[in-house]
Amino acid sequence: MPLKVALAQFNASVGDIAGNTGAMRSVMKRARALGAHVLVFPEMSICGYPPEDLLLKKHFLDDNRQAVEQLALDTGPETVIVGFAEPDGDISFNSLAVLQNGAVQRIYRKGRLPNYGVFDEQRYFRPGTEPLVMDIKGTTVALTICEDIWQLDWLGRFFKDTPPKDLLINISASPFHAGKLAERRQLFSRCARHFDCALAYCNFAGGQDELVYDGRSMFLDSTGKVVCQAKAFAEDLLIAEIVPTDGATSVKPAIATSAAEQMQPAEEIYHALVLGTRDYVRKNGFEKVLIGLSGGIDSALTAAVAADALGSENVVGVTMPSMFNTKETISDAEELAKNLAIGFHTIPIAGVLGKFDTVLSQVDGWDSAGVAYENLQARIRGSILMSLSNQFGYMVLTTGNKSETAVGYATLYGDTAGGFAVIKDVLKTMVYRLCRYVNEANSREVIPESTIQRPPSAELREDQKDTDSLPDYDLLDEILKGYIEQDKSAQQLADEGLDAAIVSRIIQMVDRNEYKRRQSPPGVKITPKAFGKDRRMPITNRYKE
Amino acid sequence: MPLKVALAQFNASVGDIAGNTGAMRSVMKRARALGAHVLVFPEMSICGYPPEDLLLKKHFLDDNRQAVEQLALDTGPETVIVGFAEPDGDISFNSLAVLQNGAVQRIYRKGRLPNYGVFDEQRYFRPGTEPLVMDIKGTTVALTICEDIWQLDWLGRFFKDTPPKDLLINISASPFHAGKLAERRQLFSRCARHFDCALAYCNFAGGQDELVYDGRSMFLDSTGKVVCQAKAFAEDLLIAEIVPTDGATSVKPAIATSAAEQMQPAEEIYHALVLGTRDYVRKNGFEKVLIGLSGGIDSALTAAVAADALGSENVVGVTMPSMFNTKETISDAEELAKNLAIGFHTIPIAGVLGKFDTVLSQVDGWDSAGVAYENLQARIRGSILMSLSNQFGYMVLTTGNKSETAVGYATLYGDTAGGFAVIKDVLKTMVYRLCRYVNEANSREVIPESTIQRPPSAELREDQKDTDSLPDYDLLDEILKGYIEQDKSAQQLADEGLDAAIVSRIIQMVDRNEYKRRQSPPGVKITPKAFGKDRRMPITNRYKE
Repeated sequence: MPLKVALAQFNASVGDIAGNTGAMRSVMKRARALGAHVLVFPEMSICGYPPEDLLLKKHFLDDNRQAVEQLALDTGPETVIVGFAEPDGDISFNSLAVLQNGAVQRIYRKGRLPNYGVFDEQRYFRPGTEPLVMDIKGTTVALTICEDIWQLDWLGRFFKDTPPKDLLINISASPFHAGKLAERRQLFSRCARHFDCALAYCNFAGGQDELVYDGRSMFLDSTGKVVCQAKAFAEDLLIAEIVPTDGATSVKPAIATSAAEQMQPAEEIYHALVLGTRDYVRKNGFEKVLIGLSGGIDSALTAAVAADALGSENVVGVTMPSMFNTKETISDAEELAKNLAIGFHTIPIAGVLGKFDTVLSQVDGWDSAGVAYENLQARIRGSILMSLSNQFGYMVLTTGNKSETAVGYATLYGDTAGGFAVIKDVLKTMVYRLCRYVNEANSREVIPESTIQRPPSAELREDQKDTDSLPDYDLLDEILKGYIEQDKSAQQLADEGLDAAIVSRIIQMVDRNEYKRRQSPPGVKITPKAFGKDRRMPITNRYKE
Repeated sequence: MPLKVALAQFNASVGDIAGNTGAMRSVMKRARALGAHVLVFPEMSICGYPPEDLLLKKHFLDDNRQAVEQLALDTGPETVIVGFAEPDGDISFNSLAVLQNGAVQRIYRKGRLPNYGVFDEQRYFRPGTEPLVMDIKGTTVALTICEDIWQLDWLGRFFKDTPPKDLLINISASPFHAGKLAERRQLFSRCARHFDCALAYCNFAGGQDELVYDGRSMFLDSTGKVVCQAKAFAEDLLIAEIVPTDGATSVKPAIATSAAEQMQPAEEIYHALVLGTRDYVRKNGFEKVLIGLSGGIDSALTAAVAADALGSENVVGVTMPSMFNTKETISDAEELAKNLAIGFHTIPIAGVLGKFDTVLSQVDGWDSAGVAYENLQARIRGSILMSLSNQFGYMVLTTGNKSETAVGYATLYGDTAGGFAVIKDVLKTMVYRLCRYVNEANSREVIPESTIQRPPSAELREDQKDTDSLPDYDLLDEILKGYIEQDKSAQQLADEGLDAAIVSRIIQMVDRNEYKRRQSPPGVKITPKAFGKDRRMPITNRYKE
């Protein structure tokens, strides 16, 4: 008999055990009504992922276990699989529970604990040592948690005595980065073929601090083919029938789904930014956001993302011109606000700047035309935005991209001041592509063409251009990608043909500005290595590349 | 024959391989001149500890290995033991090398890799599996690295076949927190008695970002008695003779040392703050620091620490009065600066505040007497300090204590603006004790008595007191200690007799203000659990205690 399996790709909130289990109960009702025999929730569905040091609290772990036991009471003959943090005396496991007929029937403990990139699982958990392969209505099902199937050699040894004959289920909390979907598909396909069984993978859809779970849960048949795939960046309930036959296991999608379409990089990154921003703002209890609009491309993209994430009515743009801003940038800021139908304020800063300059001039050596004076303008803007934030309860979104963030081309407590840094992991060259994408997707000029065309400038002094102190962004981004994402040395980058002097100067800037990044707000991870938990560099660091 | 062992407690800088090995070469010469048979350096002495994600760079690991091989060339018949990050194909180990007669003779790889608290060693290293026990001039010596001896049951099994007969050497990078010395002594003593051998423990002395290594390297004899101990919070070379006899191993200090004196908590915390501040400022290339002096106790203590760390001539206090500051606080700030003989500026902020208020009043709903207006004063002060910092190249030290930092009683980009937060891990009740200590240690009123006596206030509006919105600091600190350092639940704290409503309100404040701490500068860890790498909480966190 075919086994009807439903994957509950939902949006959990870290720590919100009551809210998560409430949402899970609703999905359980729906899946039952749809006749699912097995309902699968993602890794740590009870408490959200990653709970980080909440896992060091004994009462938090106890609450996890209790919530699973409570949820079990609501199950009937169908099998429900949930992920949770399992306390066991003084230690804990990253576990899944198999619920049925009002009780917890079986528990599987994750065998491989990732401790790289953004993951710290060996800080919290002991690895499990027992595989769990069970019969569900005549189908042999093996249960795994996330990392378990990313180490296929290990998994082969783990399942040596009890191979996953028909179906391998994997519950995950798999964060997005551009290109991750292709990695997953390749790996899952290899895994299905290796064990000659179907594979069901269930992921979250939602944002948690810097991470975005992109959904795209999927079923593969035993030939390694992706048969159907759930929505990207949204909740979904994906159902398929597993049909074990001699020699192969086929998968029949219950509803016709748009199976396997791949998004273009700009499209999927844009969606990740939207979901990550929406969830950070909403899950932290904010309705509206404020954005400083400079008339430049970074703040334009940030505002477009915010309007899509929260609705135009919840976004307020503020332009804060000084004497160094051109008419063009001021009018571009205004046009953008009009195009996006967001709120808009103009607050000139020259008066405040003048007063600051007066009091600072009391100190011998103050220079009313130097870098400190330039940074002061950014700090005045930061203070104005934060004052409005405090007054009205709106969150400030910052607008710095990854290229600037890397080399420290930003004023701490100025343009870095805010709650969430939407594009902090987006290199400048990708910012351009995303702006083009926004205009194409909307079939109109949302982001003014003049904003896209104008050479980038911080406009903190007369005739300033980014290229005064930085190389062209094409070159800069190539260096940054090699140095940050691939951990290449200056020597390696030079050997690849990049200008050695520029490489060396850029690497020094990246290293020296770690202290700024450490004080900057979180933002959406979209690359394989984002600043933050993903890349843990010492501030005090005298290593010479 | 007695074995003369020297412990080189030195101050390494993370990443500074050339600088560290240079310093090590000098010590090698000194130790040779003093006739040491064995010279021991701390864990990862080559590259400093912790190098964090530098360890993911292949060229960094290669540089480590090369430096060890170069250093070996300078050795003669004496044995030199150094710690380094050892590459081995695609993986790496936390290792020590035994150098002698111009070559690397043996390598030991750390068996236990801490992955809790501030430690992430399982992110970088594989555990070693082979003990190293060797004969040095007739003495049987076992070699271990830090965590290895903190897990005594494991160590017993590890050494089952090759017990450390005469001497167990442990090279460490052991961060300070108040009370840690007693923990170490107890553990080492147990260890020496367990194996019935002498123990030599070598630690760093110095600061690295949030960590301070407090030195206090030591020798214990086989009865578990501490025979001699190196300086606290300073470099030292501690030498002793190991004399194995039948049934016991005695230790004879080469020079009479002030062996085992214990510091009082306030004294050792003060020294940790001084060393941590000095090394953060100096190792990051700064000479001078700026501190906003409010006339209150937190900025007074911070200034006292800075003056001790860097010299009075390198500290500049800035008082920035508004109309809400009393004459008393302004004159206390001035008196403190005079007592410490530090630089002093007065920059009134009322004019700038007025201009901000004028432009912000253009926005409907702006309140010239609300919380936003209060925070604005702090942000103006932050901007003034940062402007002076940018102009003169001085680092700003912030002055927030742990109690305020915990409950978010601070203005982001205002009083949190700066490079280093000296007392961020010091609870307010300990701030008082430290101020008393400063005056006692100097036998004069360095910190004005009126500063210590005045009820704490942020002075952002008329007649404001901290107790308007916070409980008394005695109660607050008790709650914070239980909740943060001991991971107790609200229920547990209430069960211990604390007011349940207050506990619940404080816990909510702590949880809600994670976002502020994430954007605050680093500061010296002095408790078993500091904010930062030590306590990794999600910002988006809906867990209800």
